[in-house]
Amino acid sequence: MKKLINTVEDVVKESLEGMAAAHADLIAVHYDPDFVVRADAPIAGKVGIISGGGSGHEPMHGGFVGKGMLDAACPGAIFTSPVPDQMLEATKAVNGGAGVLHIVKNYTGDVMNFELAAELAQAEGIEVAAVIVNDDVAVKDSTWTAGRRGVGTTVLMEKIVGAAAEGGANLAECTRIATKVNDHGRSMGMALTSCIVPANGKPTFDLGENEMEIGVGIHGEPGRTRMELKSAREIVEIMAEAILTDLPFASGDNVLAFVNGMGGTPLIELYIVYNELAKICAAKGITIARHLIGDYITSLEMAGASITLLKLDDELTRLWDAPVHTPALRWGA
Amino acid sequence: MKKLINTVEDVVKESLEGMAAAHADLIAVHYDPDFVVRADAPIAGKVGIISGGGSGHEPMHGGFVGKGMLDAACPGAIFTSPVPDQMLEATKAVNGGAGVLHIVKNYTGDVMNFELAAELAQAEGIEVAAVIVNDDVAVKDSTWTAGRRGVGTTVLMEKIVGAAAEGGANLAECTRIATKVNDHGRSMGMALTSCIVPANGKPTFDLGENEMEIGVGIHGEPGRTRMELKSAREIVEIMAEAILTDLPFASGDNVLAFVNGMGGTPLIELYIVYNELAKICAAKGITIARHLIGDYITSLEMAGASITLLKLDDELTRLWDAPVHTPALRWGA
Repeated sequence: MKKLINTVEDVVKESLEGMAAAHADLIAVHYDPDFVVRADAPIAGKVGIISGGGSGHEPMHGGFVGKGMLDAACPGAIFTSPVPDQMLEATKAVNGGAGVLHIVKNYTGDVMNFELAAELAQAEGIEVAAVIVNDDVAVKDSTWTAGRRGVGTTVLMEKIVGAAAEGGANLAECTRIATKVNDHGRSMGMALTSCIVPANGKPTFDLGENEMEIGVGIHGEPGRTRMELKSAREIVEIMAEAILTDLPFASGDNVLAFVNGMGGTPLIELYIVYNELAKICAAKGITIARHLIGDYITSLEMAGASITLLKLDDELTRLWDAPVHTPALRWGA
Repeated sequence: MKKLINTVEDVVKESLEGMAAAHADLIAVHYDPDFVVRADAPIAGKVGIISGGGSGHEPMHGGFVGKGMLDAACPGAIFTSPVPDQMLEATKAVNGGAGVLHIVKNYTGDVMNFELAAELAQAEGIEVAAVIVNDDVAVKDSTWTAGRRGVGTTVLMEKIVGAAAEGGANLAECTRIATKVNDHGRSMGMALTSCIVPANGKPTFDLGENEMEIGVGIHGEPGRTRMELKSAREIVEIMAEAILTDLPFASGDNVLAFVNGMGGTPLIELYIVYNELAKICAAKGITIARHLIGDYITSLEMAGASITLLKLDDELTRLWDAPVHTPALRWGA
């Protein structure tokens, strides 16, 4: 196992320390229980937006804490749900009196632990709502998931709902907008290689020299099919077809196209993927009105990519364009 | 070889097409000869800032074209110098009458081809100056290089000089500032794994399961030493020691600390590297006043990292903070 780490036990903690050292103007890190929180939290009268999940998907979620996006993020151990105490303390830390929204990716542990934290926070008088992200069209159920997994749409939801909260939307409005983002977003991923979870020390799954996994999950969960390596064009066609027919997206739609690297994929390849996706969308009369290209929801050093399409309307477009200033996503500020 | 590409021959061209499709608001791509150019070039009265080099280091340089950074970038084949015709045509395309500065990484082919392009442009009446970046402290000479290699400081120079030009600095001022950045910047890299150049189809170099290369070049050129894998703490100590003693940096200095991923390194590891670097700087009385953390000068999917320290003064700090809006680097705009 080749990694730039000190000990397996300290990976998450020391990475958080690095974030705290680098971004003290934007965030603070609370330890034990661990969470990343906006430096200016709590903000009186603003809905708090929280997410969290296993570590290993950086910059998600801690890198999205800041102005116009998340108020706090709760990192679990690598590929392991955070515990309820993390979400409870984060919820209390960002509570400005207007309630707190939990953005939860659909994995059984995450859902259960966020629910428990919400109950505990409500018992302390904090209004909490939750939205589940389940945008992965690859498989119906999966390892650790009943129903569809939550993947790339999470990033877009955190940006869009964060902008709504920053603009003064109340908890019901934030919940409505988050639900709309989930309803309008569809994703699918693929892997060329596995990643290595530090505590395991060996690849999560084995792929042959000429194989790839289509529909892979962000923890290396099995996808739809394992097949012989194909060209970028054929791979994007398979993923785009699955995504486009699922919503379904239709001619005349405006979309946000998100081409995401899994952590070990060079940017030069992500632009080739984007190029193929743009051609497919153009041929179907779908306009890519906004885009995001890069490593935003990763799986450690996995080589591969995912595609997310989000159907845009005026409200979602305006909120996407709103200023954001976090360690990993920044514009207009 | 596992890559998201169509054919080996089309990697650079199709990636440029993807960039053009995504970022038409910021850049245009000219083909044959290939270069990426600001959508609003030429800008009358502004010094044009150009860089270029082999592809495979994305987002450098094409991702840095835009407001407040480069006016054009010339991508060669992967790890291969661009040809003079690219730099000549790019120089003409960005010439707004105030001259053009070439930012050249110190590799023999790059230096020679940029020189030839400058002579050709001058023969057409365009004033051209050039600054060579040679910030890599690892080795004196290297494959394809007489003297030190140009690495991470290039990214910082492009941002800082781009801001100066955007603010109206003339060619002599831009050249002076670029030279200062090079004089104040020092870098060193390391690799856990090799990358695979598509046209070769196999790793550029072989590293054992428990080996790493300290001082590696951005094309996989040999570094100072190949040694047994160590902890992130020990690795950063080795690199920081080499960098700090070279300028030398001293107690009381303000620096920009740039922790760069080589392409295949997860962000969670880069923050561990940053954490170790921050501790070393603090112990030596050096203040990290600014930072940059992420994949900015890469080597395809190589796993590894580089560290660059740039000694800041008020002028460099102000220019670093100035607004920038490019595909890969954006703030204040």
